[in-house]
Amino acid sequence: MSEGEGETAGGEGQRLTELAKRRGFFFQSSAAYGGVAGFYTYGPQGATLKTNLEEAWRDRFVTREGHMEVDAPDVMPEAVFEASGHLDTFDDMIVECPACGATHRADHLIEDATDIEEAESMANAEAMEVIADNDIGCPSCGESLADEPVDNFNLMFGTNIGPGDSAPGYLRPETAQGIFVEFPQLAEYARNQLPFGVAQVGKAYRNEISPRKSLVRVREFTQAELEHFVDPETDEPPLERVADVELPLYSADAQQREGGDGDDTGEPVEMTVREAVDEGVVESEWVAFYLGLAKGWYERVGVDMDRFRYRQHLPGELSHYASDTWDAETEIDGDWVEVTGFAYRGDYDLTNHAAHSGEDYDVFKQYDEPVTVERPTVDPDMSELGPEFGGEAEAVAAALEELAERDPDAFRTEDGTVTVEVDGEAYAVPVEQTGFAVEEVTEAGERVTPHVVEPSFGVGRLVYTVLAHAYETDEVDGQQRTYLSLPPALAPTTVGVFPLMDRDGLGERAREVAADLREAGLSVTYDDSGAIGRRYRRQDEVGTPFCVTVDYDTLGEGDSPELEGTVTVRERDTTAQHRVAVEELSGTLRALRDGSLEFGEIG
Amino acid sequence: MSEGEGETAGGEGQRLTELAKRRGFFFQSSAAYGGVAGFYTYGPQGATLKTNLEEAWRDRFVTREGHMEVDAPDVMPEAVFEASGHLDTFDDMIVECPACGATHRADHLIEDATDIEEAESMANAEAMEVIADNDIGCPSCGESLADEPVDNFNLMFGTNIGPGDSAPGYLRPETAQGIFVEFPQLAEYARNQLPFGVAQVGKAYRNEISPRKSLVRVREFTQAELEHFVDPETDEPPLERVADVELPLYSADAQQREGGDGDDTGEPVEMTVREAVDEGVVESEWVAFYLGLAKGWYERVGVDMDRFRYRQHLPGELSHYASDTWDAETEIDGDWVEVTGFAYRGDYDLTNHAAHSGEDYDVFKQYDEPVTVERPTVDPDMSELGPEFGGEAEAVAAALEELAERDPDAFRTEDGTVTVEVDGEAYAVPVEQTGFAVEEVTEAGERVTPHVVEPSFGVGRLVYTVLAHAYETDEVDGQQRTYLSLPPALAPTTVGVFPLMDRDGLGERAREVAADLREAGLSVTYDDSGAIGRRYRRQDEVGTPFCVTVDYDTLGEGDSPELEGTVTVRERDTTAQHRVAVEELSGTLRALRDGSLEFGEIG
Repeated sequence: MSEGEGETAGGEGQRLTELAKRRGFFFQSSAAYGGVAGFYTYGPQGATLKTNLEEAWRDRFVTREGHMEVDAPDVMPEAVFEASGHLDTFDDMIVECPACGATHRADHLIEDATDIEEAESMANAEAMEVIADNDIGCPSCGESLADEPVDNFNLMFGTNIGPGDSAPGYLRPETAQGIFVEFPQLAEYARNQLPFGVAQVGKAYRNEISPRKSLVRVREFTQAELEHFVDPETDEPPLERVADVELPLYSADAQQREGGDGDDTGEPVEMTVREAVDEGVVESEWVAFYLGLAKGWYERVGVDMDRFRYRQHLPGELSHYASDTWDAETEIDGDWVEVTGFAYRGDYDLTNHAAHSGEDYDVFKQYDEPVTVERPTVDPDMSELGPEFGGEAEAVAAALEELAERDPDAFRTEDGTVTVEVDGEAYAVPVEQTGFAVEEVTEAGERVTPHVVEPSFGVGRLVYTVLAHAYETDEVDGQQRTYLSLPPALAPTTVGVFPLMDRDGLGERAREVAADLREAGLSVTYDDSGAIGRRYRRQDEVGTPFCVTVDYDTLGEGDSPELEGTVTVRERDTTAQHRVAVEELSGTLRALRDGSLEFGEIG
Repeated sequence: MSEGEGETAGGEGQRLTELAKRRGFFFQSSAAYGGVAGFYTYGPQGATLKTNLEEAWRDRFVTREGHMEVDAPDVMPEAVFEASGHLDTFDDMIVECPACGATHRADHLIEDATDIEEAESMANAEAMEVIADNDIGCPSCGESLADEPVDNFNLMFGTNIGPGDSAPGYLRPETAQGIFVEFPQLAEYARNQLPFGVAQVGKAYRNEISPRKSLVRVREFTQAELEHFVDPETDEPPLERVADVELPLYSADAQQREGGDGDDTGEPVEMTVREAVDEGVVESEWVAFYLGLAKGWYERVGVDMDRFRYRQHLPGELSHYASDTWDAETEIDGDWVEVTGFAYRGDYDLTNHAAHSGEDYDVFKQYDEPVTVERPTVDPDMSELGPEFGGEAEAVAAALEELAERDPDAFRTEDGTVTVEVDGEAYAVPVEQTGFAVEEVTEAGERVTPHVVEPSFGVGRLVYTVLAHAYETDEVDGQQRTYLSLPPALAPTTVGVFPLMDRDGLGERAREVAADLREAGLSVTYDDSGAIGRRYRRQDEVGTPFCVTVDYDTLGEGDSPELEGTVTVRERDTTAQHRVAVEELSGTLRALRDGSLEFGEIG
């Protein structure tokens, strides 16, 4: 995944970051020691929201699709990243201030100070020149950076495995490599049958120079990646499953047409998956399939589809391994944040691991029927060629062999001789001396290096988006209210349980209700402190979809004796309330959470 | 968690490791590049088993207990580990071979070559002497290690955050620190009410010198830790919930009594949680509570209770932070493996973070009723003291203040003077000049530094145990069979779906059935290759509890027309079979998985 764009420090982002810390979604780590930029801790609400989101992803992209999942280490040996290209090319361009020692991304400085876009693709010397020509200064202290060297800084966190430094290791910059490197083993589990998919949900690490924008650009993050290995010749995605899904596609063409330089002024075009493929807007049918499959999932987990688009990478933006990439982007504070990259990685990774490790990174693909092919061979008579060509005889024999394979018809001449060239000189040889023959060979199959289709989800950015898009305010009882309209299945707490007040046995009864709901596997918060209205607001702010209140009627001591044994269930978004019998409570709440029951249908 | 004991490379471990690789539970990572000791990848079966185990843990120790969960970064700044003590004390004792350059753990060499136990507690110089006296040689090449220096090697993986080396960071050696360092924030989420518990499931890293024994001692592993913050004065665990649970307790006393040196010849004693507390076998009621709570959980996830014990740490074995620790240990290949540590960490961590960071790592505890205390004060009349004592007047005033606080009665003398000492000289002051008075002050509460009770589970070791204890062989149809008797809720695949053979529409129907079961949220493997018996064996080997076969009867084309629309469901352990209607299949299988239905009760 590449980085997002722009800043989100504005109103929406700031409001969200403040709520996130106060209510336990996320906050900067190790604040007691001054904090470290780019590292966040998910608090009680955020950790559960994140787990629920991962679970929803797994359900959609692994379980229901019948794919495999693996769990590989975060620390991997250097050889892996030599092969993957990360050791050589996974760099940022940096410049250090000679006065204050602060390090900055040279491309960012250039983009901020000039009209240049995508400065990342510049050579270091060129960047240095631009900095000098524009007399760009240090953002921290103002000192001129002219003539300071622009260097490459590798974004992988390095470490040493075992004592000493003889076994360098790196924290993986993408979970994908933990899958690619194990392809030989994984193909065995798939019984060497293409296509098959392998997923992983885990941490990845990038030593960013300027982490910023809250959860959007961090140094340690969680990816949910699926690597789908396909036979590029014959495997086709089940496009019919998603053919009619409407996609908001913002193609590279459209981006370049609109602003002329890839800015965000253009509009995505709505078209179905089928149209996108037929009209060639999305080149790979596999990528198109995943754009279709993912769209419904984003909607289900709470992404606002009015603030969502698929944007194609511009040619200069593509990663070193990708031939075509589309990003799912969500809008926050007027900026677009990449939440998923859908990349066609081709055979880049498997071919490189095969070359570097010497192992097989392909599968043997059996033909439906064995295929008989003609294979021309030669078997030159050296007792004739030797005397004839002397020291060149061996070279002539090799040339004959090569020619037979390339152009067997050259041996079927009228004059019974065949001519080969060695070191610029032509040698004519009687065909009968070459031992030319055509054998019929039966082949059972062939070795195929799969291509890789990769949907790569940034879990933290999705958490951030879902929170931002769920943030709502309205007025209840004349007072302003803030609530998170999270989907019930995703909300960290499913139900808040309150006694009207903590006396006359109300507290005891409410604690029993809470314990029963926990036993039924529901995520429950018990709260008996403060006015009931304040307790509702607290749950509204963390997105708890349902609250249960135990009152005097529950105990049979209120004005309505017929309500004995019932509690009030309140829905977050509408603040509507229903009485539900305690013995039906866990079933009702589970059905509401799973979406098999609507709140209005209760009773 | 400390390390396990002994080797498990014997029959059981070897069989398991072979099965684990062949069937996709786990295997050494990056084998294509020669592998790196201590790093394992969980394959498709293992990753799902691990996820299911984590989910079962979360359900038991977080959701049902109403605790919080957080998700903190793996990379943390150095200041955290200066405070936690890991930077100074989390070392192994190593010695490097002068001939071959291999590094070894000095304590392991000594334990292997001599009768010395717990060589880890030796000083380096002492260890060097023992190596020389016993002329211990390098296990790799045989060269003598006499006179080679014994050094400390810190087990944390180090890295650098940002460019340069000005911001060192470490991969956390335990997930716990990600909780402790955030205590001030977490206490706010708990509204400063003790007790509260904070859990985390995540990676931890230890740069072991000699990783070994498969998943038992690795360099990167997953912990599931709960830090329960309690008021040591007043909070008590709900012991009655587990009072009658029988615990197999192997106390430090028993260990020392039996072998005299802590060997494993003794037997644990069975007693209830209540007895263990009453008889003082387990010192902390909180630890006893968790031993009781955890035991039922181990049983549920498939630990063989005949190969399980709780062993108390010997005094020399305790971690730097712990005052009493019990390990849950499981037996594999005759060796005992620590799968959980239950430690009473006291206020060690919070006190150290408070001292190092200068922040508050305590909570304000409100009294039920405000408490009125007498507070003696002085307000010396300096216009009298000044002339009287000159340059000593200030010191005398300070001494009066200190005395009033320490011993107010000293001001209630018969002669109306009070005497203080300054620099060894006595000064008598008329009480009326001291302004002595006793004020009544009302205090609303006090600041309390919580103590920490920590159950710390090693997820990989539990996966390993559950697999080892589930490994069974029997004979079916005259052939030997291997199967894993995993609990249905934990098994990676819940159901295998097979067509009797892939023709006559059987494959299509079976694929429909598989798709429906996946839609119902079940984990499904579809298999149509090879004889049906072989397909059963494959699922038996990965512990799939149920297999569904679609046959001609299903299609209404068999000998029993009344069986149309039904399939065969087979149970793994008994190989018993039942016919179940397809429309009832997902409900039946879900009930079987969740344990609400027994196989014998079907139909």
